[in-house]
Amino acid sequence: MYTTAEMIFQSEDEFVRWLRALTLGKSPQVRMGVGDDAAIVRVGRDRDLILTADLSIEGVHFTTRLHPARSVGHRALARSLSDIAAMGGVPRFALISVAFPRAVSRSWIKEFYGGVLELASRFQVTVIGGDTSIVRRTAMIDVTLAGEIPRGKGLLRCGARPGDMILVSGRLGQSARGLEVLKSRARGRKRAPRNQRDNSETVAAVKSHLYPEPRCELGRWLQHGGIPSAMMDISDGLSTDLTRLCDASNVGAKVDVGRIPGPAGVQPEHSLSLALNGGEDYELLFTVPKQRLAKVPRSYRGIPLHRIGRICRSRDVLLVGEDGGLSPLASAGYDHFSK
Amino acid sequence: MYTTAEMIFQSEDEFVRWLRALTLGKSPQVRMGVGDDAAIVRVGRDRDLILTADLSIEGVHFTTRLHPARSVGHRALARSLSDIAAMGGVPRFALISVAFPRAVSRSWIKEFYGGVLELASRFQVTVIGGDTSIVRRTAMIDVTLAGEIPRGKGLLRCGARPGDMILVSGRLGQSARGLEVLKSRARGRKRAPRNQRDNSETVAAVKSHLYPEPRCELGRWLQHGGIPSAMMDISDGLSTDLTRLCDASNVGAKVDVGRIPGPAGVQPEHSLSLALNGGEDYELLFTVPKQRLAKVPRSYRGIPLHRIGRICRSRDVLLVGEDGGLSPLASAGYDHFSK
Repeated sequence: MYTTAEMIFQSEDEFVRWLRALTLGKSPQVRMGVGDDAAIVRVGRDRDLILTADLSIEGVHFTTRLHPARSVGHRALARSLSDIAAMGGVPRFALISVAFPRAVSRSWIKEFYGGVLELASRFQVTVIGGDTSIVRRTAMIDVTLAGEIPRGKGLLRCGARPGDMILVSGRLGQSARGLEVLKSRARGRKRAPRNQRDNSETVAAVKSHLYPEPRCELGRWLQHGGIPSAMMDISDGLSTDLTRLCDASNVGAKVDVGRIPGPAGVQPEHSLSLALNGGEDYELLFTVPKQRLAKVPRSYRGIPLHRIGRICRSRDVLLVGEDGGLSPLASAGYDHFSK
Repeated sequence: MYTTAEMIFQSEDEFVRWLRALTLGKSPQVRMGVGDDAAIVRVGRDRDLILTADLSIEGVHFTTRLHPARSVGHRALARSLSDIAAMGGVPRFALISVAFPRAVSRSWIKEFYGGVLELASRFQVTVIGGDTSIVRRTAMIDVTLAGEIPRGKGLLRCGARPGDMILVSGRLGQSARGLEVLKSRARGRKRAPRNQRDNSETVAAVKSHLYPEPRCELGRWLQHGGIPSAMMDISDGLSTDLTRLCDASNVGAKVDVGRIPGPAGVQPEHSLSLALNGGEDYELLFTVPKQRLAKVPRSYRGIPLHRIGRICRSRDVLLVGEDGGLSPLASAGYDHFSK
C-alpha cells in the first residue's frame, strides 16, 4: 500500500483545501464544513440527533495486504452508517479523522477518500470535518457520524420482550467468508481453476467483505413502520451481538440452527460457525412482537428477512438443534479487548 | 506509562459497562448515551449544532515520558473544547475513541478517563460514546465534540475586514515554554537550585502545557456581545493561525512585535519566538471592528486581552518591529504534515 515515502501534501493547509473542495456545498443543512475550527450544521426541529464513532485500525480492522485503499475508506464509513441504521435513523454528517503512516502515497489517500466519499454520496451524507496527522507506522481512522431520527423514536437494544420473534436481514457470515477467500488468494493458491475461484458465491462473499452495504433504508423503514421492539446491527457476530441485545433487554433467546442463513458454497458446519461468530456483517438484528409480525415481508427491496428464533423470559441464550436439542450459544464473535 | 502487560478489562462489554457507569445520567438532553449502537441527544430548537474532531497521538501530540495519563486525557478533550470556544459556542457532548497499546495498564486507562471526565464535568460536557480498540504500540485518541450556538451566530475565520484590530487572549507560547521545561527536567537537569526550577513562571508554563484551559466562557461572551468580526483558536502558533485567519478573510495583517504577550522568565528574543511559533496555546485570536473596540475590556475574568495589531487590505502578514521596520511574519508554527 504505502509504496513510496513521498511527502503527501505540501502542508496541512493544502490538504484541507483539497478536502474542502471535494466536500463543499453538498447539503443545505451545512452552514460551515471543512476549513474552520469546527463545522456548523442545522438539524430539524422535531428530530433527535444520533451520534456514533467507529475506529478502523490497520492490523485490527484491515490490512494493507488484503484491503485496497478504496475498501478501507468504504468500510470505515460503513461501520458508522450501520450504527445509524440500527437506530432507524437517517445519516447526515461525517467527520473523518485519519492518522496516515509516514510512508503513505498520495494515490492511497485519494483512493481512501474516494471510498469514503462515494459511499457518503450514495447515502446523502456530507463530510463536514475531521482531523489528520502523520504517524510512524499504523494507519488509524475514526469516523464520527451524525444522523437524525424523529423525536423519541430511536430504536434501542433494550426493548425486546418474551415472546418476540428474532429476525435478521441478509446472509450472516458473508464478510468472514469473504475474508477467508481473500486470505487464501493472498497465500497464492492460484492453482485452482478460474471458475472454481471466481464462482458467484465467492465473488458475493468478497464483495460483502470489501464493500459492505449498510442497511440504512431497511432500518428506517422498520422504524417508520413501528415494527421492531429492539434493534441493533451485527458487527461482532450473531453470538456476541444477540447476547448483547438479550443482556440489554433482560431476556434470553432460543435460536433455531436450521433457520440461520449462513454463507453458501462451504460445509454446513463451517457455514454455521461463520454465521454465528464471523464479524462485520453489518446486517440488522431485530425483535418483533407477534402482533406486528404480519407487517414483516419475506424480503425488503431484495434483502431477505429471516425469522431465526424467539425471545424467552429465562436469561439463557440457546441454540435449538435440528433434533430439538438445546445448547448454549456462547458469545464467540469479535471482541476488541481479547485479540 | 505502560508498565505492565496485564489485560485491561475482561472484555469490551466489561469496559463499556465501566464507562457507562461513569457517564450515566449527566444531562437531561441525552436520550441514550454509552452502551447502544449510537448515542441519541436532543438539541435546542433555535440552535445550530457545532461539530469538531481532534486527534491526539502518542509521539506526535504527547509522549508517555513527559505527559501523565491524566494530562493526556485533559489535553485530548481541551483541543476540541477550544474549537467550540473559537466558534463562540457551548460544548455539550463528547465521543471519545481510543486505540490503547497492548501493554497499557488499567490504572493508565483510569487516569486517562479521569482527565477527560474531570474537564468534561467542569465544562458541563457529557461523554455519550466513542469506540475503543487495542493496537500493538502507539496510543491514538480521537475526541469528537458537539456543541450548540444560537442559529446563524457561529463565529468564523472569514469575517475580518481591513481596519479591524487584532486581539489575543492570555499569554502566547506558554505551552511551548512548559514543554521546554518538562524536557529539560526529563533530561535530568536537576543540578539547578530548587527555587530556580520551580519559580512561579515555570510552574505556570508547565501547567499551561499539561492542563491547558480552553477559553469557552470568553468565546461565548464575545459571541454573545456580537464583538468579533472573525475568531479562531491558536492551536498551531500565532504565525500559522493568523495567516490562516487572513487567508480565510482575504486580508493581510500588521502585528506589533512589542505588543505580543510571550512567556516571562526567558530571553526576549526566545520569548517572541515561542509566542509566534509555539503551538497548543488554545488562546483565542479574534478581530474587532474599531466601532466595537470600546466593548472589549483589558481583561475578562482574569484573562488579559491584548491588542496586537490590525487587519490590512494588502494580503501580506507583517511584523512591525520596535523601530517601525516591517518584516514578513512567516508561518512557522506546527504543521502535522511536515513533522
